[in-house]
Amino acid sequence: MPVAGRVAVIVGSVRPMGRRHDTVTFLSDFGTRDETVGVVKAVLRDLAPHAHVLDLTHEVPPFDVRAGSLALARAVGYLPEGVVLAVVDPGVGTARRAVAIEVAGGGGVFVGPDNGLLAPAVAMAGGAERCVLLTDTGFHLEAPGVTFAGRDVFGSVAAHLCNGVDIDELGESIEAELLLPGVVPLPRDQGDTLVCEVLWVDRFGNCQLNAGPDDVVALGDPVRVTAGDAHAPVVRVAVRVATYADAASGAVGMIVDGSGMLSLVLDRRSAADELSLSTGDQVVLAPLGDDDRDGVTSPVASPVTLRRS
Amino acid sequence: MPVAGRVAVIVGSVRPMGRRHDTVTFLSDFGTRDETVGVVKAVLRDLAPHAHVLDLTHEVPPFDVRAGSLALARAVGYLPEGVVLAVVDPGVGTARRAVAIEVAGGGGVFVGPDNGLLAPAVAMAGGAERCVLLTDTGFHLEAPGVTFAGRDVFGSVAAHLCNGVDIDELGESIEAELLLPGVVPLPRDQGDTLVCEVLWVDRFGNCQLNAGPDDVVALGDPVRVTAGDAHAPVVRVAVRVATYADAASGAVGMIVDGSGMLSLVLDRRSAADELSLSTGDQVVLAPLGDDDRDGVTSPVASPVTLRRS
Amino acid sequence: MPVAGRVAVIVGSVRPMGRRHDTVTFLSDFGTRDETVGVVKAVLRDLAPHAHVLDLTHEVPPFDVRAGSLALARAVGYLPEGVVLAVVDPGVGTARRAVAIEVAGGGGVFVGPDNGLLAPAVAMAGGAERCVLLTDTGFHLEAPGVTFAGRDVFGSVAAHLCNGVDIDELGESIEAELLLPGVVPLPRDQGDTLVCEVLWVDRFGNCQLNAGPDDVVALGDPVRVTAGDAHAPVVRVAVRVATYADAASGAVGMIVDGSGMLSLVLDRRSAADELSLSTGDQVVLAPLGDDDRDGVTSPVASPVTLRRS
Repeated sequence: MPVAGRVAVIVGSVRPMGRRHDTVTFLSDFGTRDETVGVVKAVLRDLAPHAHVLDLTHEVPPFDVRAGSLALARAVGYLPEGVVLAVVDPGVGTARRAVAIEVAGGGGVFVGPDNGLLAPAVAMAGGAERCVLLTDTGFHLEAPGVTFAGRDVFGSVAAHLCNGVDIDELGESIEAELLLPGVVPLPRDQGDTLVCEVLWVDRFGNCQLNAGPDDVVALGDPVRVTAGDAHAPVVRVAVRVATYADAASGAVGMIVDGSGMLSLVLDRRSAADELSLSTGDQVVLAPLGDDDRDGVTSPVASPVTLRRS
Repeated sequence: MPVAGRVAVIVGSVRPMGRRHDTVTFLSDFGTRDETVGVVKAVLRDLAPHAHVLDLTHEVPPFDVRAGSLALARAVGYLPEGVVLAVVDPGVGTARRAVAIEVAGGGGVFVGPDNGLLAPAVAMAGGAERCVLLTDTGFHLEAPGVTFAGRDVFGSVAAHLCNGVDIDELGESIEAELLLPGVVPLPRDQGDTLVCEVLWVDRFGNCQLNAGPDDVVALGDPVRVTAGDAHAPVVRVAVRVATYADAASGAVGMIVDGSGMLSLVLDRRSAADELSLSTGDQVVLAPLGDDDRDGVTSPVASPVTLRRS
Repeated sequence: MPVAGRVAVIVGSVRPMGRRHDTVTFLSDFGTRDETVGVVKAVLRDLAPHAHVLDLTHEVPPFDVRAGSLALARAVGYLPEGVVLAVVDPGVGTARRAVAIEVAGGGGVFVGPDNGLLAPAVAMAGGAERCVLLTDTGFHLEAPGVTFAGRDVFGSVAAHLCNGVDIDELGESIEAELLLPGVVPLPRDQGDTLVCEVLWVDRFGNCQLNAGPDDVVALGDPVRVTAGDAHAPVVRVAVRVATYADAASGAVGMIVDGSGMLSLVLDRRSAADELSLSTGDQVVLAPLGDDDRDGVTSPVASPVTLRRS
């Protein structure tokens, strides 16, 4: 709406050269308690009214670039073509760069801070094809105070991309190798154990690990799970299951989850609560000793706590 | 976006025969803390870009089929024509069936698990006309691990329905009588009292009961309310009011709420806090004794606690 | 969906005379824990399927008209043309009036309760041009019980406005001066100090004050900040910074925020936690005494607590 004091510099829309996009997939750590996300969507609607906004999530923990990058990576295989607007930006106002990255022959463009947030998803989408720094302020909004980058830079640029502005117009090109890589923690072999990390705890308490099914073949089934703090770990036996319901006996299940990763699960209960696990916690997977195996083959009415062998 | 490892089997879209739909109303217990809801919406956008997604709520308590079914039933009279996608699915991975249910001469199709979630809303929409089990996996997505039914089955099927796939193509027909019924608790007459249950506590603390205005005619007005735990119940007098503001004296009001049910309310305060009530709690409504009536007719500055007569 | 018992009186759609609108920007205190917001959006979709709904936020604290009005005022300069539907309505059911207010030559219409919620945003959008009370119930829905105004009055009227119903059809005209004004707290000069109030704490803990940069010129830089309770205030030195990252030394920063107001901030930490501040709390800004200034010029590894001079 026309408002005194509003300053919008819109030059891009008058010279469309690139491919138009119809969808902006939007992920952030802005939360939904206030109007922040709504204002970014208002800018998108105002500048590119034809574009549909698909909210991926806005509840990434504040400043948690890793959590944001993992959510984006888990989702990217399902996203429609278009612009991906991702803002988890603890370095706003520093020298961190703002970027747009084209993938898939122009089918997708990622827009966000150059802090590793976009890297895993870009890699999964086939890798960066063209990259630019968002240095042309003609495609930004002018702020009444400090720049709110989600609104004034990333949101505005996403809208111009939807309107057909070519990525090369947005600023200076940069080689993909000069962008910050993402940080995805790898599991670590240590003796005959696998040291893992919890990547994600979903609403139901399922704990996704940074390991896939191939990583645990050598450990056998079931495995011993040592969760969390080295001083007071929670130790359980986990049995490979094909569905959540198969973990119904009270024992912890280990499933290949909907992302293709291993998750620790319980049937209709929270494995995170049972194992006192949060995102980022360590989980050690090990083969069962003979005594452990005894514990498992006997009927189990409640979860078994095992001493270390 | 094209991603290595993504497997989508899309056969339905090439043979549209049924009615196209423009709206998918979406309810779930997925929460919005992570990308789960966003991924389902991405599938819908990818497969049926013309369809509008209307989020009813995603904050149904995890696995709470009853709460989800009641929310759907309260809303159904206001929903636009189209597909209703409802996923509260504690039995995912068990033998519970996945279904699509057509209502209103094809104007609406409900898609979800066969666990009673859909039943009350389907009944209010006139009852099931055609029902199918979602057994044709050609309309599903192939998962990299365990099936995420919201994404791979229900979401995918909802998109194909929007694209004009006829419900009969989705799998084998089934008689409506063979589907699981919903569980709606009925109020119970006991002596001269009515034993009710709290169906819903809204954000403002209003407590919806499983009773309508006809159920309490014989009790008179005001009534005595005995809320919660039989060992330490909270007892109050409730006065029939026509608006929330009429409950401004500090006494509890009993209103015919926006769904046509009885609710216990306070003016700008939480009746749930005042009465220590949560969803599922028992509330006994009874006629006032003479001593109670005395208490009410005198001016009341604060809520009155009454001993049992 | 056609449902037994549903009663919708729709007369307006058959006589469009005014401007059609494509966007409904929607703010409320309904929360998203249940289907309330979804039902209002269902009404909009049902009555005006062409209209796009832009959710500004639904997490305004329950009944907090001031917080809602401030969120709307901060956002209004970025909103697309169309209808603004705002519902924070503690007086529902009382004699408080329901209004529609046209601004910007018909480019925008605000719909909501006449309780000051809309006033600051309307003023920022250039002021009211035409105002009507929503007295023609032909544009409302008929409720099965008490009126749920967000659904039955405001939502329904917003849809009819989108369909081209002229504002004058909605009810009787009223002069703008007869509407309730908004309440925006002004900062207060007291001696050589400025007594401010926290308007908003965002998700990152930044504390927006009710003062702009012009208000603090006379205080110099840095300033002394006395936050909160007069009996146990938190006292800090605040330095003017241009970006959040400039507040990285551990000292509190004072920034001109993305709305053009002064905010107290820390780099990647919550200033609200550091200063024990919440919305509505008092903050006194004062010039530094000589002793304060000494404290600041020496290297500061952690925030300095200063005695009152």
